[in-house]
Amino acid sequence: MNAITPLTAAAPTFADVRRAASVLEGVARRTPVMTSRTADARTGATIFFKCENFQRMGAFKFRGAYFAIASLPAEAKARGALAFSSGNHAQGMALAGQLLGVPVTILMPKDAPAAKIEATRGYGAEVILFDRYAQDREALARQLASERGMTLIPPFDHPDILAGQGTAALELLEETGPLDMLFVCLGGGGLLSGCALAAHALSPGIAVIGVEPEAGDDGRQSFLSGQIVRIGVPKTIADGAQTAALGEITFPLIRRDVADIVTVSDAELVEAMRFFAERMKMVVEPTGCLSAAAVFNARLPVAGKRVGVIVSGGNVDLASFARLVA
Amino acid sequence: MNAITPLTAAAPTFADVRRAASVLEGVARRTPVMTSRTADARTGATIFFKCENFQRMGAFKFRGAYFAIASLPAEAKARGALAFSSGNHAQGMALAGQLLGVPVTILMPKDAPAAKIEATRGYGAEVILFDRYAQDREALARQLASERGMTLIPPFDHPDILAGQGTAALELLEETGPLDMLFVCLGGGGLLSGCALAAHALSPGIAVIGVEPEAGDDGRQSFLSGQIVRIGVPKTIADGAQTAALGEITFPLIRRDVADIVTVSDAELVEAMRFFAERMKMVVEPTGCLSAAAVFNARLPVAGKRVGVIVSGGNVDLASFARLVA
Repeated sequence: MNAITPLTAAAPTFADVRRAASVLEGVARRTPVMTSRTADARTGATIFFKCENFQRMGAFKFRGAYFAIASLPAEAKARGALAFSSGNHAQGMALAGQLLGVPVTILMPKDAPAAKIEATRGYGAEVILFDRYAQDREALARQLASERGMTLIPPFDHPDILAGQGTAALELLEETGPLDMLFVCLGGGGLLSGCALAAHALSPGIAVIGVEPEAGDDGRQSFLSGQIVRIGVPKTIADGAQTAALGEITFPLIRRDVADIVTVSDAELVEAMRFFAERMKMVVEPTGCLSAAAVFNARLPVAGKRVGVIVSGGNVDLASFARLVA
Repeated sequence: MNAITPLTAAAPTFADVRRAASVLEGVARRTPVMTSRTADARTGATIFFKCENFQRMGAFKFRGAYFAIASLPAEAKARGALAFSSGNHAQGMALAGQLLGVPVTILMPKDAPAAKIEATRGYGAEVILFDRYAQDREALARQLASERGMTLIPPFDHPDILAGQGTAALELLEETGPLDMLFVCLGGGGLLSGCALAAHALSPGIAVIGVEPEAGDDGRQSFLSGQIVRIGVPKTIADGAQTAALGEITFPLIRRDVADIVTVSDAELVEAMRFFAERMKMVVEPTGCLSAAAVFNARLPVAGKRVGVIVSGGNVDLASFARLVA
């Protein structure tokens, strides 16, 4: 499929992913690639699970956040970085800032789970709470960034974030060699477009597939229509993919490098979560189950193929996890 | 501590562990060694978790079972192997038999969880159910073995089982280099004595520590008294360590090679299980938490030390897991 929307000037290339990998070396965890004969028997494929649930702070988001902060000029580092997120990007930024000695401020809704607020503070970030019903977080973030001279680092639509996330696929393919298909979860498209850069460079001819929750198929709609489609915040247990629209940088890359975008239901996510816990002994958050659920439920034919699956994260509180898998 | 009970003629040596490793190469999974900065910060130690919950069929037991069956003479292989177990040894034997083309029969109590019976049958073993209140399983096993000419493979007190289990520590130490301490869960002592053989060979001066459930401290009692102490079946959630006594082969090795045996409570096991799920994104069964619980709760001083922890298995049904961690 040819790009209709042109690539932005900021669009990174595989060289940026390589650069991110060298910055992340010895800092991010080189997470294990796991296999499951049960999963292979069930699908007829040979599946390689890249387990980013074992990444530092529990998700791939650490990769992009660290690379983005590490890439700031010294002066910007001294003034600090700012993000708005109630999810893994917040914790990734907080931990990266702590490791790099860069002050990080996170805007979080004041009704965010106390555990997430504490975890973010635990990594040394300043957390500013806002009322998401009364305040516009983006305006607030811009105002704070401007007042304090801090650099706003968005969760996905940023060239360094995207290049950093791509190192997950880079490591996977370095370990497995060429694959036929690579399934990646899709929210705003940082992980998907970054991984696609690495995948095409290391495994020519690979089909890279984005996987969204059924309720939040803006990516698929955008992919098919050729323009960014914006939806209301989708109701899904895949809280890391509750984005309303793809980004200006990620969308053209996805149009160029991704073969298809498919969706899975919340029930399929729960079933994949149970499979991971029961058969592979791993805790995977709902969003982290998106790519596997698409493979397990044969959204596309995978039999006889060598298939990569990015398991993106494991940050689910134990009470929710227990409720979902029991 | 010098051995009071002499080693049996059957006692294996490190050469047997090496031999087991070569037989298991490409068959058993080389499980990942995981680390946790949170665990290190909490204990002051540098901890290396050898994650046998990711082993084939979910526990280290596959190692010993496969090596024991693979080591049978051709004639004995043709007649098959037999075991009595309602736990991981049953599934390890069943899977090993399937892979080696050796018929395996497992005696299981008829009130064993249906899921375990199905899993064992799923690996191709014949399951014979008995009434554990009316029948003596050992007598029944001997009778069946004699009638059918099958070889009875006990769960721990067997030189090949012990040598096979020792490959877990061999792999760990090959990856980490020398350690100061190694914590290993203790039921009948197959894993502990096998790992101790490997540990002393690869890391001279290492202190190998056995960890039992409080309710089942027969190993500690035996260790201190110098003779095998037999207790009633202990009431503990660590169902893989509900053994009544150490073995004739394992006990003298433990006396010779183990520095200390400590115990942990069921509450400490649950707390470790929660830690593994929440912070390390792993499902670990209660027995698999024994060694970590001893380290987390400072049963012995570990600060400043390089510490190995064998995480022995992950076979806990999801309903129990959910109830325990929620």
